[in-house]
Amino acid sequence: MDERELRQLLDSVSSGAVSTDDAVKRIATLPFKDLGFANVDHHRALRQGFPEVVFGQGKTVEQVTGIVLELMSHGSDILVTRLGAAEGAAVAAAVLGTRYDPLSRTLTLRQKPFHDRGRGTVLVVSAGTSDLPVAEEAAVTAEMLGNRVDRVFDVGVAGLHRLLHRLDKLRAATAIVVVAGMEGALPSVVGGLVSVPVVAVPTSIGYGASFQGLAALLGMLNSCASAVSVVNIDNGFGGGYVASLINRRQPAEGA
Amino acid sequence: MDERELRQLLDSVSSGAVSTDDAVKRIATLPFKDLGFANVDHHRALRQGFPEVVFGQGKTVEQVTGIVLELMSHGSDILVTRLGAAEGAAVAAAVLGTRYDPLSRTLTLRQKPFHDRGRGTVLVVSAGTSDLPVAEEAAVTAEMLGNRVDRVFDVGVAGLHRLLHRLDKLRAATAIVVVAGMEGALPSVVGGLVSVPVVAVPTSIGYGASFQGLAALLGMLNSCASAVSVVNIDNGFGGGYVASLINRRQPAEGA
Amino acid sequence: MDERELRQLLDSVSSGAVSTDDAVKRIATLPFKDLGFANVDHHRALRQGFPEVVFGQGKTVEQVTGIVLELMSHGSDILVTRLGAAEGAAVAAAVLGTRYDPLSRTLTLRQKPFHDRGRGTVLVVSAGTSDLPVAEEAAVTAEMLGNRVDRVFDVGVAGLHRLLHRLDKLRAATAIVVVAGMEGALPSVVGGLVSVPVVAVPTSIGYGASFQGLAALLGMLNSCASAVSVVNIDNGFGGGYVASLINRRQPAEGA
Amino acid sequence: MDERELRQLLDSVSSGAVSTDDAVKRIATLPFKDLGFANVDHHRALRQGFPEVVFGQGKTVEQVTGIVLELMSHGSDILVTRLGAAEGAAVAAAVLGTRYDPLSRTLTLRQKPFHDRGRGTVLVVSAGTSDLPVAEEAAVTAEMLGNRVDRVFDVGVAGLHRLLHRLDKLRAATAIVVVAGMEGALPSVVGGLVSVPVVAVPTSIGYGASFQGLAALLGMLNSCASAVSVVNIDNGFGGGYVASLINRRQPAEGA
Amino acid sequence: MDERELRQLLDSVSSGAVSTDDAVKRIATLPFKDLGFANVDHHRALRQGFPEVVFGQGKTVEQVTGIVLELMSHGSDILVTRLGAAEGAAVAAAVLGTRYDPLSRTLTLRQKPFHDRGRGTVLVVSAGTSDLPVAEEAAVTAEMLGNRVDRVFDVGVAGLHRLLHRLDKLRAATAIVVVAGMEGALPSVVGGLVSVPVVAVPTSIGYGASFQGLAALLGMLNSCASAVSVVNIDNGFGGGYVASLINRRQPAEGA
Amino acid sequence: MDERELRQLLDSVSSGAVSTDDAVKRIATLPFKDLGFANVDHHRALRQGFPEVVFGQGKTVEQVTGIVLELMSHGSDILVTRLGAAEGAAVAAAVLGTRYDPLSRTLTLRQKPFHDRGRGTVLVVSAGTSDLPVAEEAAVTAEMLGNRVDRVFDVGVAGLHRLLHRLDKLRAATAIVVVAGMEGALPSVVGGLVSVPVVAVPTSIGYGASFQGLAALLGMLNSCASAVSVVNIDNGFGGGYVASLINRRQPAEGA
Amino acid sequence: MDERELRQLLDSVSSGAVSTDDAVKRIATLPFKDLGFANVDHHRALRQGFPEVVFGQGKTVEQVTGIVLELMSHGSDILVTRLGAAEGAAVAAAVLGTRYDPLSRTLTLRQKPFHDRGRGTVLVVSAGTSDLPVAEEAAVTAEMLGNRVDRVFDVGVAGLHRLLHRLDKLRAATAIVVVAGMEGALPSVVGGLVSVPVVAVPTSIGYGASFQGLAALLGMLNSCASAVSVVNIDNGFGGGYVASLINRRQPAEGA
Amino acid sequence: MDERELRQLLDSVSSGAVSTDDAVKRIATLPFKDLGFANVDHHRALRQGFPEVVFGQGKTVEQVTGIVLELMSHGSDILVTRLGAAEGAAVAAAVLGTRYDPLSRTLTLRQKPFHDRGRGTVLVVSAGTSDLPVAEEAAVTAEMLGNRVDRVFDVGVAGLHRLLHRLDKLRAATAIVVVAGMEGALPSVVGGLVSVPVVAVPTSIGYGASFQGLAALLGMLNSCASAVSVVNIDNGFGGGYVASLINRRQPAEGA
Repeated sequence: MDERELRQLLDSVSSGAVSTDDAVKRIATLPFKDLGFANVDHHRALRQGFPEVVFGQGKTVEQVTGIVLELMSHGSDILVTRLGAAEGAAVAAAVLGTRYDPLSRTLTLRQKPFHDRGRGTVLVVSAGTSDLPVAEEAAVTAEMLGNRVDRVFDVGVAGLHRLLHRLDKLRAATAIVVVAGMEGALPSVVGGLVSVPVVAVPTSIGYGASFQGLAALLGMLNSCASAVSVVNIDNGFGGGYVASLINRRQPAEGA
Repeated sequence: MDERELRQLLDSVSSGAVSTDDAVKRIATLPFKDLGFANVDHHRALRQGFPEVVFGQGKTVEQVTGIVLELMSHGSDILVTRLGAAEGAAVAAAVLGTRYDPLSRTLTLRQKPFHDRGRGTVLVVSAGTSDLPVAEEAAVTAEMLGNRVDRVFDVGVAGLHRLLHRLDKLRAATAIVVVAGMEGALPSVVGGLVSVPVVAVPTSIGYGASFQGLAALLGMLNSCASAVSVVNIDNGFGGGYVASLINRRQPAEGA
Repeated sequence: MDERELRQLLDSVSSGAVSTDDAVKRIATLPFKDLGFANVDHHRALRQGFPEVVFGQGKTVEQVTGIVLELMSHGSDILVTRLGAAEGAAVAAAVLGTRYDPLSRTLTLRQKPFHDRGRGTVLVVSAGTSDLPVAEEAAVTAEMLGNRVDRVFDVGVAGLHRLLHRLDKLRAATAIVVVAGMEGALPSVVGGLVSVPVVAVPTSIGYGASFQGLAALLGMLNSCASAVSVVNIDNGFGGGYVASLINRRQPAEGA
Repeated sequence: MDERELRQLLDSVSSGAVSTDDAVKRIATLPFKDLGFANVDHHRALRQGFPEVVFGQGKTVEQVTGIVLELMSHGSDILVTRLGAAEGAAVAAAVLGTRYDPLSRTLTLRQKPFHDRGRGTVLVVSAGTSDLPVAEEAAVTAEMLGNRVDRVFDVGVAGLHRLLHRLDKLRAATAIVVVAGMEGALPSVVGGLVSVPVVAVPTSIGYGASFQGLAALLGMLNSCASAVSVVNIDNGFGGGYVASLINRRQPAEGA
Repeated sequence: MDERELRQLLDSVSSGAVSTDDAVKRIATLPFKDLGFANVDHHRALRQGFPEVVFGQGKTVEQVTGIVLELMSHGSDILVTRLGAAEGAAVAAAVLGTRYDPLSRTLTLRQKPFHDRGRGTVLVVSAGTSDLPVAEEAAVTAEMLGNRVDRVFDVGVAGLHRLLHRLDKLRAATAIVVVAGMEGALPSVVGGLVSVPVVAVPTSIGYGASFQGLAALLGMLNSCASAVSVVNIDNGFGGGYVASLINRRQPAEGA
Repeated sequence: MDERELRQLLDSVSSGAVSTDDAVKRIATLPFKDLGFANVDHHRALRQGFPEVVFGQGKTVEQVTGIVLELMSHGSDILVTRLGAAEGAAVAAAVLGTRYDPLSRTLTLRQKPFHDRGRGTVLVVSAGTSDLPVAEEAAVTAEMLGNRVDRVFDVGVAGLHRLLHRLDKLRAATAIVVVAGMEGALPSVVGGLVSVPVVAVPTSIGYGASFQGLAALLGMLNSCASAVSVVNIDNGFGGGYVASLINRRQPAEGA
Repeated sequence: MDERELRQLLDSVSSGAVSTDDAVKRIATLPFKDLGFANVDHHRALRQGFPEVVFGQGKTVEQVTGIVLELMSHGSDILVTRLGAAEGAAVAAAVLGTRYDPLSRTLTLRQKPFHDRGRGTVLVVSAGTSDLPVAEEAAVTAEMLGNRVDRVFDVGVAGLHRLLHRLDKLRAATAIVVVAGMEGALPSVVGGLVSVPVVAVPTSIGYGASFQGLAALLGMLNSCASAVSVVNIDNGFGGGYVASLINRRQPAEGA
Repeated sequence: MDERELRQLLDSVSSGAVSTDDAVKRIATLPFKDLGFANVDHHRALRQGFPEVVFGQGKTVEQVTGIVLELMSHGSDILVTRLGAAEGAAVAAAVLGTRYDPLSRTLTLRQKPFHDRGRGTVLVVSAGTSDLPVAEEAAVTAEMLGNRVDRVFDVGVAGLHRLLHRLDKLRAATAIVVVAGMEGALPSVVGGLVSVPVVAVPTSIGYGASFQGLAALLGMLNSCASAVSVVNIDNGFGGGYVASLINRRQPAEGA
């Protein structure tokens, strides 16, 4: 039952063609689905201004190109994540206006002017140079979701002075994404220096007993800094997304 | 919005006090919840005849007694699982008509005559004597859910002749629950001898590299017999429940 | 000792050439094997109507072609699973009448008309688009085993309205295969909406802490919905097979 | 070098008793530590209004009582977490004004009037009745940190209608803590219904293949809902803390 | 069909009351089970001289006493393993002639004179003093199974000279059981010094990253000495049993 | 100090050029090493008749060819394991008399006539066709080590009748190697049918929750059949080697 | 063959009673063991000054008392580790001069004056108050092994200023033991601030995803600071022992 | 604030242009960072004489060449680790004076004469030929860090005599790096023979239950020899680095 059918039913009630009893019965025995459209709209409304996000991994150039072209026609911004270099270049060549960034492996298309939806700044911090792709994925995601984004890269815990030199940036942020592999200690240190939520992203950087990021993941889950929560290994998109939600002005605030 | 409110709204539509447009708007913007009662009823109807099930572990004698007394008043059958010996005896003493079985650690109350809801027989097979509590939990569950239940116990794979002596029982069942710890090989062997679904229940019986049932669980998940599906370690209730659903006459059949 | 030898022995008993005592001794000391043929026949009879199933993975085009041609001569239906695209195309080109489906990676040959062996419908439900190959493997398996099969795809738990829109299909099935990767939550949700057995198939879809499907597998084994049992990761065939056994009319019913 | 010493050095520079060169040398060769007090103050200022938090587990009644009495004299609010029932009752009896809650295992003392520091409401959602202690720990934590807190309990994914009935509460929150054991699927479902950050807290509720909460943890880390980040198993305090930081008005906003 | 029935059938064939055809049909369609008794006898015959073995863990004094008394009446030797000190003392007091050894946690009863069934000597080697209970369980098992047993204890790999002092014993054995916890390196070293099978028994001795014997188990499975095979953690009985089978004279040899 | 030097020292003692005290001092302070040659000889003597074994994996054609040519000159038999098809063919072409078997991935050279060093027969049993390479590696190893070898292949536990048909072979062996992947249940079943040592070799055959052979490994370690010991995953060589040691006639017997 | 026998043999050579040839033969065919005493002395000499170390865990008061009394008579210092509070108090009461420390769970006896065997200072650093027992075990061990020991406790990475305040102590040490639970990040931070070896000791402090110290262990093994090596979880003794060896003056230096 | 700014501020204090109070305020409220340069210098001074180390893995020829050329201009020695054969040859060809070693996968450049910074010798010991690359990485690292390095290779524990033949070398070292895969038992054996720190490096050599070096890692962490500490799997660089720090003369000694 969609809106049109519901309207017809109510018209029939109004006209007396259908009794109240019969209408109650029909509506009450509806499965959830029939009124689901209400929720979808509501949900989408809340997310208004967010780009369409496409998970690029495992998709062919043709598939990505097709999806991008279709979404493009809706006028929305587009973010494709985890898109390989070859595929990215091909799609960027095929679709005018898209931009592929090989470091973060993202393809982006902006059709709307940047509108700052945040209460402040999202800061992305990363430990080592090998963590950069994940960190940039987080940063690009946060930018595409309407945030001012700042970056503090290459500040691993074995060289504290580098991190402490950027203390002002850490303390100026509304939400911080911390990206680190190996022992994953950076979120704890950052979490001890600031008073905003720290979204930790473990990376699979490391070898041997890093077990593809498990060591960093466990380190972050056991952080002694209470401000830290964690997303999946290498999930730069998730880190940027959660930070964006944290930084976001509420409808009440932003309206 | 519950049924009463919906009726009032529709009455208002019928009387013209509320316009169709307004009524559509109100109903269409309802969250899922307001019509949820429809589904609950439907779901419960399908499960008609099932006993009320209470997870006894971690509950005090007072809590279990209270719950049982309340459910009793609805007239339904009751199955309490994972109830310790002391607690079980106390509840059985407190609530007339309940029966506590220390082996399966179940407390049961039958208020309705047994009605065979199955297409055939549920057979419970177990490997070692230590697996008996879990096997009996499965058997009692299946009985309480309206099945004829048969048992073939202590037929581990290192003594094949014991299992093969009971081949007739295996081949007479509609659904088979196979309970085994240690290497968990029994479901594969049983699955190779029959043509009905085998619900495998790994137990935590074993030591060392059994890792509290992990070895048996993995063994069963990797079974070379295609008829095997698996529930959680020591989940005798789950095994009996799934087997009951398999054995169950469909509404269309049973009606 | 095969049938012929047994007959000779009994003839000798009948003729008096061998005494009862000697015959008892010879038969009683037979190892299991000599009468095993009886069981094989019995077992096969029960599975009558099932196609021959070939595990294609790791086999060459020549091997698969050879096996298919040999089975073909028996007149039975054939299902080859886990056959790569290149191999599948080559076998399909080589053996007239076979059909290769690159999505489910199955090669099928029907030599007998479809005969509905089920009590109702097998429904295959899947969470994400990446889970499709495994879901289709389940669906094709169930079809080849003589079931009417329905599909509800792309209904992940983060978009409940999509699932709830298909509630009628869920409630019309006799057995449901639910295929999901990542957190593997879909079987729990489906299991809460229906009253038939749910066979859960975890997939290796995901990355990082999905650990090649382990997260989904554990999620399904710990399902709070009692109707759920689980097969191996990516085992679409197993899911379809178990569901087929569940849906199957018993010999007594179907005869 | 503390502030007093620094002042003396600068006085000497001012009076000419120490040359600029010598002063530069002394200050520049200071290790980090000597100016650390600055940071401590800054950090504490940012956290102003937060209660003192004591990890009660493993501490004796005497130790907890001593710590609480000392902190009390500073006039700050106090939150003791993971305090056993016996210890909690004893401390509550010993220290006037403290309140022990056996469900959440927290002991609290309010010395300041509640001041709402949040932008909106922190909602705590939990799956099963066994998850209540962890959920309440999160709720009490958020309350003690200056948030309006709402609760939606016992809404596991196998009974969706219960959750959907509370959709309005879900959509009214600024930050949501979701507490679940077993398969840990609830955060995914909640994350699909709202547009605010979801802080997932896996619990150790379950048995067998739940592996003391590992299944729930992995499920949450692999959530298909992008809004979800995760804290340690049973870490209700962490969930409440992160949600509080998310909900918190920024200094610029709150000043 | 048991032996008596088979005899009746053959008598009928002999007398002509049953035709050969009918008899073939009846026998050929027998399930495995009916002739299973033959195998049991055969199997038991091969194991002749072995004691009856009872797994004592989890059994009450009453249960063990009952089982022992029953087995006693058959005249066979008895070995009860994993029997706690309290239970062991009680059973030993209750059943005349039994002997309880608290170190190996075994209770034994010899009713037959020791008969050396081995080709040579079974040697039990252990690494640390904490490994002694498992090592003694292996030794007692081998003795009860009819082997001459020698012991070389407390020869961990960090003190090679202790092991090398016993080289003559190592080289005199027919089969060696090596029991070790922690890193489990001893079987590799022993395996490099001898040319007989080494049965490695990992123990749960250790802490932290020993993970209850997992480290020792993995070490032994990866032994660079080809002579090493492994049984379960703490399975001293298994080690002694396998070594006994290795040392055993074949029927052809021993007859 | 080698033998020559020792002789010189003793000559000096004999001639009086060196006092007993000085000689004791020199010999007593020798590190182990200087007399080590004695042991090497002793050890090698015990292993007399064994072929030289080369681990082929990771070695180039040139390396393997070089090693084989050098060993060849000593007149001993040679066994190269884990040698890829391309490398194997190349070495076989380069070194006259060697034979490469692509199934077992072994290259062998016999320079001595086969001499049966065993007490009986080594039997190699395997579960599925995919386990064949590992099973053949075990069989070839046992043959090269001087055993009569028998094979029973493709007798997985889901088709018991195939195994039971070969019961005579199982019961005729002195040592049995059982090779199986997936759930690894076959050694338990075989161990229940025989009274000789069963050396279990788990294979990495399987997918998903087989975790590259971990499931089979754990299954075998937890075998309910006491005769089973286990070697590393895919270690066909180890299985054949241990079985050879078991089957071997002792020096005292064979001399 | 011990020293006395060797002397006799050489005397016989000297006297001509035994020929050089025969003596060569006897000595050359000795197994390793007979000259092992040489090595033992050598080894012990190198360790001179070290106390006798007793692993107290699992030993009774009687056993520990007995061992301590025996060792005491040799005049050496004694260190008993992992001794429970009750046992420790009892032994300390029984053996005059011993001292039990309940924090580090060590019992010590000094019979020799402290002799500084180190090149500098061993520093023990710990993260949280719960890590203190392990840290103190390391410190007491290092002291008993002849080191000057300094302590920097409660300097977790979430409060960097505390650590940085003690930078002078960190930079004054010759070897540093860093003890930390939870995420185990402290060794990386310390390793980045100093240029001496850092021996990391993970502790089992934490809960949930700390998996009894696994998270800390993995974090330390993956440290981005190259100076870090790791010992077993909770192995304070090992940390103190390795640091002592590092700090130790070489015989050449100390002689 | 850098040194120049600090000087200006102090000049202003000296000249009276800035009051002491204001200067205290400015310096005391500095974040850590502004004086960080002091620490960097200090730290670098301590590490004087160490080469620049570049992690080559994952870097292109162009990147490595660029980095090497830049570092070269500083006059320091250079060590590039984990550089593949193709990349290594290309860089070596491009940069005059560099040397690529394919075994250890290191590229080195010496611009300064070798200066022995050690107290004695670093010994690198390895178990099997497959462990050589990691062992050589350790050895090259130690050499580049200014140590005399000795090597004892191919002395696995299954052939003790080979190790014992080199006892003199073991006992002559100041620090020992022990490299081993498979069961990782060698460090325990070496640790039992010497009295200096043993840095254990597990390698990923092995298959099946070695789990890419996990077995060796766990073995080493559970070593019964107290002298053993462990670095990450395959971390030859780390082993050589820690051993270098241990062997290093302290500033006080070396100055």
